[in-house]
Amino acid sequence: MKERYRLADRVDRLGVETAFLVAAHAAAHAAAGNRVFPFHLGDMNLATPPHIGEAACRALRAGKTGYTPSVGIPELREALAEDFRRTRGTSYTADHVAIQPGGKPVIAKFLLALMNPGDEVLYPNPGFPIYESQIQFHGGVAVPYGVVPGETNFTFDIDGLEASINERTRLLIVNDLHNPTSAECSAEDRRRIAELAVRHDLIVLLDEAYFDIHYDGRSTSIVSEPGMEERSVILYTFSKRFAMTGWRLGAALGPKEIISIIGKMNVNDESCANHFVQWAAVEALTGDQQPVQEILAELQRRRDCCVDLLNDIEGVTCYRPDATFYLWPDVTAAMANKGFTAYQAFLSTILQETGVSMCARSHFGTPLPGEDRFFLRLAYSGIGVDDIEEGLRRLKAFLEG
Amino acid sequence: MKERYRLADRVDRLGVETAFLVAAHAAAHAAAGNRVFPFHLGDMNLATPPHIGEAACRALRAGKTGYTPSVGIPELREALAEDFRRTRGTSYTADHVAIQPGGKPVIAKFLLALMNPGDEVLYPNPGFPIYESQIQFHGGVAVPYGVVPGETNFTFDIDGLEASINERTRLLIVNDLHNPTSAECSAEDRRRIAELAVRHDLIVLLDEAYFDIHYDGRSTSIVSEPGMEERSVILYTFSKRFAMTGWRLGAALGPKEIISIIGKMNVNDESCANHFVQWAAVEALTGDQQPVQEILAELQRRRDCCVDLLNDIEGVTCYRPDATFYLWPDVTAAMANKGFTAYQAFLSTILQETGVSMCARSHFGTPLPGEDRFFLRLAYSGIGVDDIEEGLRRLKAFLEG
Ligand SMILES: Cc1ncc(COP(=O)(O)O)c(C=O)c1O
Ligand SMILES: Cc1ncc(COP(=O)(O)O)c(C=O)c1O
Repeated sequence: MKERYRLADRVDRLGVETAFLVAAHAAAHAAAGNRVFPFHLGDMNLATPPHIGEAACRALRAGKTGYTPSVGIPELREALAEDFRRTRGTSYTADHVAIQPGGKPVIAKFLLALMNPGDEVLYPNPGFPIYESQIQFHGGVAVPYGVVPGETNFTFDIDGLEASINERTRLLIVNDLHNPTSAECSAEDRRRIAELAVRHDLIVLLDEAYFDIHYDGRSTSIVSEPGMEERSVILYTFSKRFAMTGWRLGAALGPKEIISIIGKMNVNDESCANHFVQWAAVEALTGDQQPVQEILAELQRRRDCCVDLLNDIEGVTCYRPDATFYLWPDVTAAMANKGFTAYQAFLSTILQETGVSMCARSHFGTPLPGEDRFFLRLAYSGIGVDDIEEGLRRLKAFLEG
Repeated sequence: MKERYRLADRVDRLGVETAFLVAAHAAAHAAAGNRVFPFHLGDMNLATPPHIGEAACRALRAGKTGYTPSVGIPELREALAEDFRRTRGTSYTADHVAIQPGGKPVIAKFLLALMNPGDEVLYPNPGFPIYESQIQFHGGVAVPYGVVPGETNFTFDIDGLEASINERTRLLIVNDLHNPTSAECSAEDRRRIAELAVRHDLIVLLDEAYFDIHYDGRSTSIVSEPGMEERSVILYTFSKRFAMTGWRLGAALGPKEIISIIGKMNVNDESCANHFVQWAAVEALTGDQQPVQEILAELQRRRDCCVDLLNDIEGVTCYRPDATFYLWPDVTAAMANKGFTAYQAFLSTILQETGVSMCARSHFGTPLPGEDRFFLRLAYSGIGVDDIEEGLRRLKAFLEG
């Protein structure tokens, strides 16, 4: 047998979501007969609203099983353009929409369309690990910017972002309503980011995966700022808004010229997204929105329960963000109390002692110079209120014990 | 508005399936009120067997709507490994299988995993246009090899292939049971290809999209040759075998080390394939196979009808291939009779005069030096026997008129 393959050099630069390793540890702990409290998941344990599933089955039985146009069925592109007109005030038509098998594929396609080897790309760190991985995989230079603590929530370090712009900077990735910190732009932040993009002629990937997971407030997109519609590509996904993570459907929206390049990539990569799933997505966008409200209400109950219990633990402080389903508590004091100086030992001891499974700062990029506090990431999308209560009760007992 | 974007240089090297343009012309002709006979499609107008659709709906209702492991659910990976043990005699286990959203994504992932810029990749031309496009897009050098007419069918030009191998040749793409020519390897051809791959240490992409579309004979995979299991990646798809083109499900199978890299790419690109579609695919592989036989019987009826009628046209000769659903008639004499010297005018006149829509040699790569005959490609997967008869009756009247 061949022992080793001469792999392409770029493979050395390919990252993964190391949160998958946390999932593997949790699964092993569960398989050993232990109760696990899954705060590590980015997935949801909420059912897709049934009317969406029924629309998929109807389309399937009606024979919607052949290839579609590479950019998607016109009905879905039009419905999404219409949704964006309403929610973001954009002037997109169907021609500005390329349907994708998930939101995630937009990241690689954006970079492949616009980034040359050596180009610098600004991306959030801590952040969704795929940005850094794909920038480096395809030969770009990944330049991080961070988040800063604010009055009631984290915000993005726009001063730091600005200071990192130079003549090689070509692209900017923004994930307003942020995984993992739930950072949210103020109106002033959106204005500043747009102003920087225009001034430095940056093309911007707006990862709006959590745009619709907003509790009391409503989301405003950076694409609505002056000059931004012509220089933004939006990552849209059906995953979170409609609890459709495993359906794999999303879209890229942006200027026609860029979207048509992304459409050409669709022809090359996966031909098109699933046909009957696209019809189900038309129903998701245009049908009954009551179940979506129920998903949000449930998530909000979980958030409140989580935040209250976390802040009740000595050495832990946590904001109450108005969006996404992630919490990013500062656990610096709690870790010191227990004598831990590194995440991995801390997390695995907690898993061992309490069954609580979580991610940490280290799963979302290499810490930046000057970071001196410790953060965990709890997701409450995959765990109900009862388990949240029991899990965080055990966590409190361990951390205060 | 921004008028032009500074796109990445690689975008200039991105190709498309120009057959999509043929489809656009056919659609325009139909929209103008004309009857169209669609011989241009790679899609199928046959229904997915209903038990597969019902399995999808059952899984959906049972809540199979969350993310799956990036390489797919274990049950499907195991079922596919078992199918391969039976049909190809491989020793693959689930670890050798990475489920994909279609067969097509395997092409880019194979190249990204194994090809460095400047590496030479041998690929069939005429051939599926994505190979050339993706080799060039990701910085490789695409080196074509052709087909040659044989006794009863086309075969691959293995002498030409061998002559093109040099010290920069790293990868070889083989599409035995070939789109567009239906070329099929003899046992001796398979032996020779394997021998060349081993001798020159090439890693081989075996595109087996049509492996199961075989009429009287049974398919034998090149992976079964000595030394090939360790140096092949197989593109498998549910599209054709189960009439599931628009479902978007396929897989890469090969050595564990390469499959694990492809799995990492899944994490980066699309996370995973649709969850309930994967359960439907388990049913497709393990459930009732009678409907699959009916699909094959219908395709065989169409083939015979097509081949008989084409050979009845003056100036047209066509083999009766035992696999795929494509025909590659030599129309050199018929074109000369009608005074045409280029494909485009020939095809558009035929569409205009008869409604028959077809692809030509020019849609499957740049002709190689020395090619002096003209070929069309007819697909009979998207058109029933009655329309085949009427369309080819009209084509005969036009070509002989
Ligand atoms: C910030 C961010 N972007 C994009 C995605 C992609 O989601 P999907 O591919 O399911 O649409 C996720 C999913 O977790 C995410 O957290
Ligand atoms: C030769 C060949 N390879 C691969 C494919 C990919 O098919 P799919 O992505 O539907 O699995 C096709 C489809 O037409 C094909 O003709």
